[in-house]
Amino acid sequence: MPVLSNGELGQRVAEAADLVTVALDELLPRADGPEGRLTEAMRYSALGPGKRLRTYFALETGRMFDVPERSTLRAACALECIHAYSLVHDDLPAMDDDDTRRGRPSAHKAYDEATAILAGDALQTAAFEILAHPDTHSDGAIRAELVARLAQAAGARGMCGGQMIDILGVRDDLGGVARMQRLKTGALIACAFELPLVLARAKDSERHAMLAFAHDLGLAYQIVDDLLDAEGDPERLGKAVGKDAGKGKANFVTLLGVPAARERLALLREQTKSHLEPFGAAAEFLRASVDFVLERQS
Amino acid sequence: MPVLSNGELGQRVAEAADLVTVALDELLPRADGPEGRLTEAMRYSALGPGKRLRTYFALETGRMFDVPERSTLRAACALECIHAYSLVHDDLPAMDDDDTRRGRPSAHKAYDEATAILAGDALQTAAFEILAHPDTHSDGAIRAELVARLAQAAGARGMCGGQMIDILGVRDDLGGVARMQRLKTGALIACAFELPLVLARAKDSERHAMLAFAHDLGLAYQIVDDLLDAEGDPERLGKAVGKDAGKGKANFVTLLGVPAARERLALLREQTKSHLEPFGAAAEFLRASVDFVLERQS
Repeated sequence: MPVLSNGELGQRVAEAADLVTVALDELLPRADGPEGRLTEAMRYSALGPGKRLRTYFALETGRMFDVPERSTLRAACALECIHAYSLVHDDLPAMDDDDTRRGRPSAHKAYDEATAILAGDALQTAAFEILAHPDTHSDGAIRAELVARLAQAAGARGMCGGQMIDILGVRDDLGGVARMQRLKTGALIACAFELPLVLARAKDSERHAMLAFAHDLGLAYQIVDDLLDAEGDPERLGKAVGKDAGKGKANFVTLLGVPAARERLALLREQTKSHLEPFGAAAEFLRASVDFVLERQS
Repeated sequence: MPVLSNGELGQRVAEAADLVTVALDELLPRADGPEGRLTEAMRYSALGPGKRLRTYFALETGRMFDVPERSTLRAACALECIHAYSLVHDDLPAMDDDDTRRGRPSAHKAYDEATAILAGDALQTAAFEILAHPDTHSDGAIRAELVARLAQAAGARGMCGGQMIDILGVRDDLGGVARMQRLKTGALIACAFELPLVLARAKDSERHAMLAFAHDLGLAYQIVDDLLDAEGDPERLGKAVGKDAGKGKANFVTLLGVPAARERLALLREQTKSHLEPFGAAAEFLRASVDFVLERQS
């Protein structure tokens, strides 16, 4: 099996980001009327800089299972719309009150609070509109299942529920932090693998292995996030650091300390890769991505 | 054709409201964990008192076209989730800043702003999850079409776009007010007729007639709303009146004056009913509902 360099992987991730940005630019509405302010704010929030890791994961998974790229890319656009909406709403003064996002003013600073609330709302709607469109897949049952899976991941039992727990700050042990992560970010990351598997009509055994992979990867990704919040470079990250500790919020690093968190991350990294064994060489890129993604500095 | 009394119609509307409230109570998530605050706020917002006119219209339309009630009721639940989410977000301080809604504290007053934002978000997600579920219809293509129609009505080219125009206040003529109404409230009212027609696989000619009916009814309903804002009883309405005039916002009544608005309403009422002619006696209840709905005092 060839060893992939970080340069090659970085190139692949960047290409995925370009693909989804172009696709989103076509799919997101434009308006000439007074509601143009809304569509502008949606575009500002969804088309700005971003790692687009959900898209990268979705595209690599789609390739593993021979899904037509056009279908996977539409699913990735829906994921990015949900991710973008969640960031716009999380940044609001009543929520996490963040003035910057990815080195730019957050949506309510670039526009205003009302526009940011509406732009987030309409981005969520756009995600489901994209999935339900016949261009996503010719089989309506597949399209409806994509909608159902994304809704489960994004709603009260997924991302929104996790954000509620995060805001309330009700978590003082590792179990609570892990549950919050699984809902708030893990569910949507898992969707990046799940939607292509739905498109591929993958077997249950394949789904289970991929979802175990997604689950561990999401957890590892969060530990990296918490390490960066404790030790990262705010300039490189494009956002403030030390936020959780500053707010008295528990996370993996505040609870475990940096050395133990690093140790756990190393174990989890190997466990994550082990879930891909059944797929052999077909999982080459995903396997190599684990290290690449977890070694990020921003 | 029998003449239906207002009492009989009121009974039918009340029964529809009970049906959808029971169905929503079953469909909306409950949670024991810390995210229970979120599901409570969703329930507070979606299960509270309300006229449930969208549900009533959907159920009558479903009956006209022999759609199984279970399917129509799920579509109605999705409509009510979108309607409830829009009210929660519209009431926020950054939007219309309303402390009361239907005679109760609005969601951000009963809970807090962050919880209200999240509850609105998760109610929107719930709408699409309900439609996409196989219980709504056995044919996935029908489920996907329901999702697509509701998303079009709710998103940037529908309800969210209309709310943006309303917030900006950029409308100083009847055309601008009419366009705002069509997007902000008309699109979702039209959906109350459209979703049952999708479930019924209705013919294009039937869809066109029903959508023309829905369009005129939505417009007439808005004129009644504006008349109530100018002349209504705040206690009976369960909310403040004179809001548009107080904020210098144009509406049908501020632009036309009360007598001309009443005259236009009378003409529109007859035009609305005329769209039902092709359906004969099958449209009996909908036809009678026009007067009933437009004569409301709250």
